[in-house]
Amino acid sequence: MRRTLIKDTVDLVGQTVKIAGWVSIRRDHGKLIFIDVRDRSGSVQVVVIPDKEEAYAAAKEVRGEFVVEVEGLVKERPGGAANAKINTGKVEIEAENLNILSRTEGELPIDIMNPEFDVNLETVLEHRHLSLREPKINAIFRVFDQLLWSYSEFMRTDGFVEIKTPKILNAATEGGANFFKINYFDREAYLAQSPQFYKQAGVGFFERVFEIGPVFRAEPHFTSRHINEYIGLDAEMGFIDSFEDVMDELEKTIQYVFESIAKKCAKELELHGAEVAPWMKIPRLKLTEALEIMEKEFGKKMEGIDIDAEGERLICQWAKNNNESDFVFLTHYPTNLRPFYSMPSADPQYTETFDLLYRGVEIASGGQRIHDYKQLVANIEKHHLNPEQFKDYLDIFKNGMPPHGGWGLGAERIVQKILGLSSIKEASLYPRDVRRLSP
Amino acid sequence: MRRTLIKDTVDLVGQTVKIAGWVSIRRDHGKLIFIDVRDRSGSVQVVVIPDKEEAYAAAKEVRGEFVVEVEGLVKERPGGAANAKINTGKVEIEAENLNILSRTEGELPIDIMNPEFDVNLETVLEHRHLSLREPKINAIFRVFDQLLWSYSEFMRTDGFVEIKTPKILNAATEGGANFFKINYFDREAYLAQSPQFYKQAGVGFFERVFEIGPVFRAEPHFTSRHINEYIGLDAEMGFIDSFEDVMDELEKTIQYVFESIAKKCAKELELHGAEVAPWMKIPRLKLTEALEIMEKEFGKKMEGIDIDAEGERLICQWAKNNNESDFVFLTHYPTNLRPFYSMPSADPQYTETFDLLYRGVEIASGGQRIHDYKQLVANIEKHHLNPEQFKDYLDIFKNGMPPHGGWGLGAERIVQKILGLSSIKEASLYPRDVRRLSP
Repeated sequence: MRRTLIKDTVDLVGQTVKIAGWVSIRRDHGKLIFIDVRDRSGSVQVVVIPDKEEAYAAAKEVRGEFVVEVEGLVKERPGGAANAKINTGKVEIEAENLNILSRTEGELPIDIMNPEFDVNLETVLEHRHLSLREPKINAIFRVFDQLLWSYSEFMRTDGFVEIKTPKILNAATEGGANFFKINYFDREAYLAQSPQFYKQAGVGFFERVFEIGPVFRAEPHFTSRHINEYIGLDAEMGFIDSFEDVMDELEKTIQYVFESIAKKCAKELELHGAEVAPWMKIPRLKLTEALEIMEKEFGKKMEGIDIDAEGERLICQWAKNNNESDFVFLTHYPTNLRPFYSMPSADPQYTETFDLLYRGVEIASGGQRIHDYKQLVANIEKHHLNPEQFKDYLDIFKNGMPPHGGWGLGAERIVQKILGLSSIKEASLYPRDVRRLSP
Repeated sequence: MRRTLIKDTVDLVGQTVKIAGWVSIRRDHGKLIFIDVRDRSGSVQVVVIPDKEEAYAAAKEVRGEFVVEVEGLVKERPGGAANAKINTGKVEIEAENLNILSRTEGELPIDIMNPEFDVNLETVLEHRHLSLREPKINAIFRVFDQLLWSYSEFMRTDGFVEIKTPKILNAATEGGANFFKINYFDREAYLAQSPQFYKQAGVGFFERVFEIGPVFRAEPHFTSRHINEYIGLDAEMGFIDSFEDVMDELEKTIQYVFESIAKKCAKELELHGAEVAPWMKIPRLKLTEALEIMEKEFGKKMEGIDIDAEGERLICQWAKNNNESDFVFLTHYPTNLRPFYSMPSADPQYTETFDLLYRGVEIASGGQRIHDYKQLVANIEKHHLNPEQFKDYLDIFKNGMPPHGGWGLGAERIVQKILGLSSIKEASLYPRDVRRLSP
């Protein structure tokens, strides 16, 4: 007999089916044994009666997270017993046969089927293989999946070509310090901190490119906003008139992605008590304007032209109050805060760059890049770097490059903030931080 | 004026448009200057007449790969001059203004717009930023993009959830030797050779998972089939009856992907003189049967039960002759050729595993995995490995795991073989091999 997915049993009352899945709970009620079985599609109650001796004996052995296969009759549950909370709450399965496909080994370290599941993050991560089955935790990665999907969908619709660029590099990408070193045969290499240089090259051969891939940052941070390996959603586009075009494109992308998540992941959002706010045009503020607002409205003054984590929270609060927007663009970061390839503004103290903040944190960074070879060489020197070190990168600009710009989005931060998770690590399947490399 | 994509100019005869793109060729015909301009959508001829003095002066300066912006009138080309080879061959643009957006720096090292482009692979890779603009080379990565897209499309349609698993590991994944070491803060870590263990874990929380991501292999190979960083298209599925289910799923996936590529990339395939053969049910042969065929039909005898590159070519030739299939599954590899987690066959000399060959090379490897904790521990020991070393992996199987299996496909090999490229490096944007880490 072929396996039936649990969600389909509701339409099969009166028929015999075979289901298979994990045991969520076993309850003994007098002589009857009730087992909640779940598969990828849903959960259903199985009833085992003593008359079915073999099935009953097996049911007696069953424990939480055992994998079972059950053949039985789909019956309507009496009105009073129907469970409105689950999609198959109207039916139950009366077992003919019950076959244990797999057992657990030893005691399970955490009780993932406890509706009050409340375990500290380190323990959740320590037992990650198991905690990922907990319904709320599991839902996080259905949202993640939807994010990946709708991002690629939108990018392709808008003429972007997906590229996969190397993660092993012969030089530290942006000349920074936060890279991991690799032993590459008989020499040293580095893990890519971003696909920045390659996606710019991509503009040269596809005009519009995007990449979804791992990004490695050797930052010794211990915050709720940092992990050392994350998934970057990058894009780069040519023939822009200004970096406003890049923000326009990012805004359209984000809107599509968020509306898709709201639509496709309604159940998962509900489980987290989370909402995607109705779409509002994203306000755009110069960083200097944001600093003025912070001082005037919140009495917070920064030293110099810069913003910190608290400032980002405050300016998001302001955007929510003033524009009903969960998002805000900050623009025109000063030259010293941005990489050497950033296009200078008319006032060369500033750059044609932006950050996109969402519910208090930066989820994207982007801007227009310098596309002229000579200007780029000069800017590398202005940043006290050595153009020799960027030979491969500079070669891109010897070939004729249009005005272009792009962004890098962090997937985990988006998911964290949509669902209101307290740490970014909750939004990474198997997060890596300074201390954690396992499981 | 907003930019018009070149492909749309055919519908705008009599109107003034602005186009922007790269100069493919400039030709001076008496007093007229003809410039072929290309963007991501196509290519069109621009005519510049001496009367438009500024445009004419700029046109005189223009060289191949300069980036230009042209405003002008779209005119029908006289019948005799129409160029059937390009999608805009019916029209040309008479320039009003011509603006140089970007110049090349020095001489271009390769002539990518030469229709007879024929440069050796090392030079092509050395000047990769530029060679990726060459039409045939460029087409390779449109096929790559379509492969990524249709693979995710099919997986999602069939209930697989996309996961992103860590590439930095605390242990060498499968206990092998071909891993790259990383300096991870104050300790050693390893680059993932495959998402094998994590995708198996994924079965535990999503039943069906897939991943598209980089795979790192420190193999010191110098062949046309190996690169040290490639894109793996992985999948893993639970609740299988046998590894035939995995082959069935892979066959459906491959069929969808190949038919999508045939449909969406007709132009690219044509450029390479490549064809996707009409779909045929893929023959499945035991490895031992394949060895008999090799000996009987081709007089080739292997030592022991194993197959080499030549054998794979021959057996594909046989499948093409006998089944009109470009593909063939080889199954039941002997235990010593497969990793410790492979499910043993009824005859424990063999395993429930397969390779999928396409046009002479292996493009996928897969099989059923051991899902029982105790059996897995015993098998690790049988392979003379230490279970202690696999603690994180073994934890998966303490939680109750259904019978499952999956595959790993290599994206570059698929693209190489579809297009008939002589080296796999041609199918990687920026390939990494023992010697090459740049650009």
